[in-house]
Amino acid sequence: MTRRHVTRFRVEFGDCDPAQIVFFPNFFRWMDAASLQFFVACGMPPWRELAQSDGIIGTPIVDVSAKFLRPATYGDAIDIETSIIEWRDTSFVMRHIICRAAEILVEGQEVRIFARRRPDDPMRIQAVRLPDHLRKLIE
Amino acid sequence: MTRRHVTRFRVEFGDCDPAQIVFFPNFFRWMDAASLQFFVACGMPPWRELAQSDGIIGTPIVDVSAKFLRPATYGDAIDIETSIIEWRDTSFVMRHIICRAAEILVEGQEVRIFARRRPDDPMRIQAVRLPDHLRKLIE
Amino acid sequence: MTRRHVTRFRVEFGDCDPAQIVFFPNFFRWMDAASLQFFVACGMPPWRELAQSDGIIGTPIVDVSAKFLRPATYGDAIDIETSIIEWRDTSFVMRHIICRAAEILVEGQEVRIFARRRPDDPMRIQAVRLPDHLRKLIE
Amino acid sequence: MTRRHVTRFRVEFGDCDPAQIVFFPNFFRWMDAASLQFFVACGMPPWRELAQSDGIIGTPIVDVSAKFLRPATYGDAIDIETSIIEWRDTSFVMRHIICRAAEILVEGQEVRIFARRRPDDPMRIQAVRLPDHLRKLIE
Repeated sequence: MTRRHVTRFRVEFGDCDPAQIVFFPNFFRWMDAASLQFFVACGMPPWRELAQSDGIIGTPIVDVSAKFLRPATYGDAIDIETSIIEWRDTSFVMRHIICRAAEILVEGQEVRIFARRRPDDPMRIQAVRLPDHLRKLIE
Repeated sequence: MTRRHVTRFRVEFGDCDPAQIVFFPNFFRWMDAASLQFFVACGMPPWRELAQSDGIIGTPIVDVSAKFLRPATYGDAIDIETSIIEWRDTSFVMRHIICRAAEILVEGQEVRIFARRRPDDPMRIQAVRLPDHLRKLIE
Repeated sequence: MTRRHVTRFRVEFGDCDPAQIVFFPNFFRWMDAASLQFFVACGMPPWRELAQSDGIIGTPIVDVSAKFLRPATYGDAIDIETSIIEWRDTSFVMRHIICRAAEILVEGQEVRIFARRRPDDPMRIQAVRLPDHLRKLIE
Repeated sequence: MTRRHVTRFRVEFGDCDPAQIVFFPNFFRWMDAASLQFFVACGMPPWRELAQSDGIIGTPIVDVSAKFLRPATYGDAIDIETSIIEWRDTSFVMRHIICRAAEILVEGQEVRIFARRRPDDPMRIQAVRLPDHLRKLIE
């Protein structure tokens, strides 16, 4: 049974563009926040603690796609339902369904890795397998 | 022969997240700007004029995907090479290749429409065929 | 007795910069949203309706200042307490106190106008007195 | 003779709000970038190097104010002229004049500190005097 987590956002005036609708990169900003809220809801410690304990500095995106079905505008409350739909060797696939009440607005999919800094070059990152004690929190 | 346009951006400190790398939604912000600069370079009037003359209020996204190959950080200069790789009935496909010098950082693809407000409900939009006099500017 | 309204925000990972703290322009983004939530809480219609009924398109900033007392980081819940502390002829002064639990993080002050498009040049705006029927909602 | 540095920005569609004008927090985003470009133009190393060499992680804002004289919209090119107008013990005052050609749009003033992490609590920061070898770069 896949774990799901719903995060609510309020669309603000400043999130919208001159066409009066959400400027689309903001949907990715919200998906990113929903992704983190998913891990928080699972009991995962904040990245700054994981950086100390396990060297994991976050879950950078390697691939993302989204379908924009309906626009949203300021004043709208939107809900993002987030789940992990696939585990790969050193990456995983997250799905985000963004709704306003019963209407689906956006369907998004992210491939993310758990990343640490490369020992030989701290400005570069590399994918690591999620340690078992953290993986257990999610499943 | 496909028209190409390159737009340059400078990655700012505030574009980066606590992992020291570009917060990925900013790449979509820059792709959106590169998309508009592509049309400007073609001689297309600004959307606020097209809204008056042809009812076209912009080119909202209907579908987007991106592969993130390498991270960028503040101080980097990035170039986005933009082209239209496919025309469909009421939509088109844009490709954005984001480079730092010779390195490809991100490959993005957008499906966009030319949109106008729906006559029956101005808060909703609909796709329209690009009028020929505007289409000629691009090809 | 001055009306006060509190709006809650969650600081997201992407709101923070490489120094791990909130990138300060985001505090203004939240103040702007808190300002609108204040009016919504008073029963003011959305700007897009006011644009139709009274020609008012929003409350643009003319002057703003803020003191940053303590930083915030991702995972923090922050509350913005908003009030109008002065009415002037065609402008008003809003105060925003941003707290994390009992700690004050930021004190902000905005001078805003109620704006409409200039009849002679719709790309420019001008200040208008707030009509009495709307003013009554706030006091 | 005070050193001045001008940084140019292009206002993008996504920087503007439903009132068709720049969403004002973006002006602070640009001032922050102009502030960093000022230091870069002086020959100051990037913060990530200064963090290693001198423990300085950036120049967080402690106080900011701005007057918004005229709006800007997408397609505008804006220039920010930045200078340090006052040195205090562990802080300094920066002035930013934002113009579109000859028109002044925004006048901003920031009080910033040079900050390092507190030895007793790395999540908190403290002001430090700018070391002389760095101060010389600026004057």
